[in-house]
Amino acid sequence: MTRTRPRQGRPRHTPPSDPNASGREQILDAAGALFVEHGISATSTRMIAERVGIRQASLYYHFATKDEILAELLATSVRPSLEMVERIQALVPERASAAAALYAVAATDVRTLSRTPYNIGTLYLLPEVLTERFDAFRADRGRLQQSYGALGASAAADGVTGSIPPERIGELLIQLVEVVIQIRRTRDPDPADTDAIASSCLRLCGLGETAIATARDEARVLLTGLA
Amino acid sequence: MTRTRPRQGRPRHTPPSDPNASGREQILDAAGALFVEHGISATSTRMIAERVGIRQASLYYHFATKDEILAELLATSVRPSLEMVERIQALVPERASAAAALYAVAATDVRTLSRTPYNIGTLYLLPEVLTERFDAFRADRGRLQQSYGALGASAAADGVTGSIPPERIGELLIQLVEVVIQIRRTRDPDPADTDAIASSCLRLCGLGETAIATARDEARVLLTGLA
Repeated sequence: MTRTRPRQGRPRHTPPSDPNASGREQILDAAGALFVEHGISATSTRMIAERVGIRQASLYYHFATKDEILAELLATSVRPSLEMVERIQALVPERASAAAALYAVAATDVRTLSRTPYNIGTLYLLPEVLTERFDAFRADRGRLQQSYGALGASAAADGVTGSIPPERIGELLIQLVEVVIQIRRTRDPDPADTDAIASSCLRLCGLGETAIATARDEARVLLTGLA
Repeated sequence: MTRTRPRQGRPRHTPPSDPNASGREQILDAAGALFVEHGISATSTRMIAERVGIRQASLYYHFATKDEILAELLATSVRPSLEMVERIQALVPERASAAAALYAVAATDVRTLSRTPYNIGTLYLLPEVLTERFDAFRADRGRLQQSYGALGASAAADGVTGSIPPERIGELLIQLVEVVIQIRRTRDPDPADTDAIASSCLRLCGLGETAIATARDEARVLLTGLA
């Protein structure tokens, strides 16, 4: 049985042996596996080409450098969340409460990180990713963190905003959501994890259980409308 | 001016150029810098020896393998917290509330991670650290996570324990504390960070601001008594 797949809108995770994957997708997949398994420095474009079963010249047709491949992989771990965050933030406060928006953003981000090929988020702490070659990725991640800070500070109880400035709330919230990277090292995240993480974000902002339940319901309606 | 330093009880962070550091300390320091800068695979015992300015043979007098050096570095990021956690947990519930104990454990762990040489916690996500060669470190970290889970579940409000099992609370709390590894990449953590992180752990467990203020005061007395 053959499946056809539209050329635009490639899926976020291409299984390694998918015969329908494009050359570009196969390269990203092979590179993801190698980066996560061996690290960035120890992975060469030659190794990536060999794993796909193509010549290095063919790889260069799609990507000029190894860094370009890594940059695209890193982008898959943050871009889908960032796009959704912008749409969600635009609804606050008229059509959505800050608490519901924060729940929706956290749940979206958990799902994005749950789907990255080979749990690519494990590369976040690598020294190579700190260099200016990956400024675009770090700028994206910085914008995501700012959104967490802004929504968190709007949603938060006075006792919290009085003691923690918004940028630090953003640091704490993005860190909390990234627990899914750690979870994936030992098990597949499930919907209970998504709710536990998103509701923990609201608790961290000082919200009580009744307010959290309201925000959860509102966020689900919101996400259904945006899907 | 020369400082004398007692041989027992070596400090947690040896500055790179400290002339009083023992051979063993100098090796750990050089290795920490190289592991964090270049990754684990790309660092050899030869590079470590060269950085210290000793022969490889002298390095082998102190450590049999590169992995043994890394294992000791990883231990410095978790052992001091684990020792303190055991002392704190022994006081619950007779002499300390679970909430105060959780605050004290989180604050201790933040301090341990704030002091590791070269922010060694950035190595936690590396694929090499996942292998069985570092089982001892991962067992230590697992015990720390279990303690977070146990204290968190005891301290938590019913609404939280009803929806998140203790082992998942432990996952969330240890992740939250490890934000200090991310913070150190851009700035030095300060006492306000320690309080923000420790009090966020209690908020994540559903505690309100009054209960957090009480736990904070109790934890400070507790930590002074144990110091």
